[in-house]
Amino acid sequence: MKKIKIGILGFGTVGAGVVEGILKNGELMAQRTGLFPVIGKIADLDIKTDRGVKVDKSLLTTDALSVINDPEIDVIVELIGGVKVAKDFVLRALKNGKPVVTANKALLAEAGRELFEASAKSGAGLYFEASVGGGIPVLRALRDGLVGNKIKSMYGILNGTCNYILTRMEREGLDFDAALADAQKLGYAETPPDLDIDGIDTAHKAVVLASLAYGAPVSMDAFTIEGIRGLSHREIEYAGELGYRIKMLAVIREVNGEIEMRVEPSLVQKKHLLAEVHDAYNAVFVDGDIVGSTLYYGRGAGRLPTASAVIGDIMEAAAGKGGCSDWLLKHKALPVCDPKNILIRCYLRLSLKDQPDVIAQVAHVLGKNKISIASMIQKEQNAGEQVPVVFLTHKALEKDYAAAMEEIERLDVVDGKPVRMAIEDFE
Amino acid sequence: MKKIKIGILGFGTVGAGVVEGILKNGELMAQRTGLFPVIGKIADLDIKTDRGVKVDKSLLTTDALSVINDPEIDVIVELIGGVKVAKDFVLRALKNGKPVVTANKALLAEAGRELFEASAKSGAGLYFEASVGGGIPVLRALRDGLVGNKIKSMYGILNGTCNYILTRMEREGLDFDAALADAQKLGYAETPPDLDIDGIDTAHKAVVLASLAYGAPVSMDAFTIEGIRGLSHREIEYAGELGYRIKMLAVIREVNGEIEMRVEPSLVQKKHLLAEVHDAYNAVFVDGDIVGSTLYYGRGAGRLPTASAVIGDIMEAAAGKGGCSDWLLKHKALPVCDPKNILIRCYLRLSLKDQPDVIAQVAHVLGKNKISIASMIQKEQNAGEQVPVVFLTHKALEKDYAAAMEEIERLDVVDGKPVRMAIEDFE
Repeated sequence: MKKIKIGILGFGTVGAGVVEGILKNGELMAQRTGLFPVIGKIADLDIKTDRGVKVDKSLLTTDALSVINDPEIDVIVELIGGVKVAKDFVLRALKNGKPVVTANKALLAEAGRELFEASAKSGAGLYFEASVGGGIPVLRALRDGLVGNKIKSMYGILNGTCNYILTRMEREGLDFDAALADAQKLGYAETPPDLDIDGIDTAHKAVVLASLAYGAPVSMDAFTIEGIRGLSHREIEYAGELGYRIKMLAVIREVNGEIEMRVEPSLVQKKHLLAEVHDAYNAVFVDGDIVGSTLYYGRGAGRLPTASAVIGDIMEAAAGKGGCSDWLLKHKALPVCDPKNILIRCYLRLSLKDQPDVIAQVAHVLGKNKISIASMIQKEQNAGEQVPVVFLTHKALEKDYAAAMEEIERLDVVDGKPVRMAIEDFE
Repeated sequence: MKKIKIGILGFGTVGAGVVEGILKNGELMAQRTGLFPVIGKIADLDIKTDRGVKVDKSLLTTDALSVINDPEIDVIVELIGGVKVAKDFVLRALKNGKPVVTANKALLAEAGRELFEASAKSGAGLYFEASVGGGIPVLRALRDGLVGNKIKSMYGILNGTCNYILTRMEREGLDFDAALADAQKLGYAETPPDLDIDGIDTAHKAVVLASLAYGAPVSMDAFTIEGIRGLSHREIEYAGELGYRIKMLAVIREVNGEIEMRVEPSLVQKKHLLAEVHDAYNAVFVDGDIVGSTLYYGRGAGRLPTASAVIGDIMEAAAGKGGCSDWLLKHKALPVCDPKNILIRCYLRLSLKDQPDVIAQVAHVLGKNKISIASMIQKEQNAGEQVPVVFLTHKALEKDYAAAMEEIERLDVVDGKPVRMAIEDFE
């Protein structure tokens, strides 16, 4: 049986998971595919730490180039992370004609085009299922299963850390800081957690999804990215009373020939399947013009789930199926919609002084900016206290919300900063 | 650009959907894959009926063999349905070296091995994503994305008709007959509906799923197949009170080196994602030893969703990626567990006479058969009326339930036939 020699760059959590998976199920994979995967070499700057998996010491090296240049290695797996060094190694491997598997969404989001070009030029495939949604084979679904579909929209819960924090906040009434601290203690959040909770990680993944669906190398500057940092428990509570759950969403859809993209915490109706994605799980809801609504769900991160996706890619690379660099380069790219012109519904929460006419003043500003109110709740308070008022609006333009919010913040009757969040109706 | 000429056998609902999809998105597919799909020929006994799609009349023929034998046709799509004629055509095409795409689960379940052997022998791939879960790319997920996983279990809602009927029964309090009649009126159920509501269609699909996960050509006689015919609305109501929803499930899992399979309406905890799959939607919950829990959701039937899967297969066949006939033949097959030895929890509903000691008599029979009670509800009734009592049991052997139920039915204090349904905890 043909052996596939794998060269791994980066022997961290996922690298060790890949080795574990291959040692465990290599024989099964061979039965299935006719190709027997074996670990050929592993490069890491630290080859002393015990990674919890059995590896012959002679396979370890601190010299990544010796792996990339080894003619016996069939597939290179890049698990270093970060952009600079990883990019250099991936480009070298592709130029050497070696297929590359990577889980590196930052690299793909920031240098995707360059990598796809190098891959198309040398004919060595670039595989990156593990970069989005951990173990969920959602990129394959877009590339293969749904190839006959124009993708109308995609809605992703793509960051396990955010989803874990939001789940804890809702279930236990925790504040953001407490939920984050807990997530860090339990290993669900990094220290510092910025990439996750500020939405950067979700945005990287959204860029990868958009490139598959729309052929567009969307720049990270071209769309709204907002995280969950400092989200108040009150928003979760009020949204809940109104029948919604707050989820950190990547929204990517085609509207009138443009790609509408945004990454931000959004209100999702509780009866929608995405509202039922809890803890560190991820899911992507994909609407195709032929297939209709589909959803892909699973663990979005972690040693073994990510390894599952990496291994799937390794076997595909080994079979020489070719990846999708050509696709990404030849697919006619759609332009990205100016974020100011996105039409959305919003949740607005204001603290109003307890005096006559305050609602009228706010409603007047909204109306002037072409924002109409769909529903409103106002809680009874003790006399003289601030009154929290929540509005849900009909669809209006992002730029009109921005103008209205600025004006509302300046009203004397409004205390503190108004809160605004998107509502996603999946239309 | 290379053109792919498609020969379609069977110009019914799905056939017309495939033509519609290709006319609509052919150019997009070409951008993505470098292959331009065109309809080469369409065979059907009836070529006069208007199928609602634009097709040059010269492409239509009543002679299927002229399509199969046409050297210009690159891919054959079998959408005739049924086993006998379809099998003959598929085998001829494969022997001709032409890749075949089919949505025919009955054919695969009943003659899969013969087809895979013909495919492996001639090297022409056999593709059948559309046979399970309509437009959901779940077979690809098992074959490619999860190739590194030993599949621990799969739970499928695989029949849209059953799920539609169960949804209507629950939401509107309808009886089975009323819900079925409505489903037929709205085109969600065939006339006669037997294949769907008696579980045969679900079982065919379960056989296909099992063959991918476990390499096993499971015979339809080797496992329990029970449908939803005559399901009483009371079961839905009582299950609901206990926190469960009734779903028509295919359960396929590996237990101690054997495949445990069963197809029957089962109680699913409302908080599980599968309980949130409503109407004619399908979903498959797959647990892999590396990836963990994953779920795939979408429309399980219908003209366009099924066409989406067929088109995905056409493009894969055209790219010569080879299908998975080798896999299915070389994968070491696991034996199928004797249905009598399956351990399950059950829901039991009995109508008991309103007299002292009745519960004790029933509990005694259960205990004697090694069945222990996890919880029980008994509704208050007017004196002298029958008392409905519901037991939820702990895990026990299928054969012990069978013995206990026979004994319970013979008790003087029990009126009518006891109802028994499986409870699925997804362990």
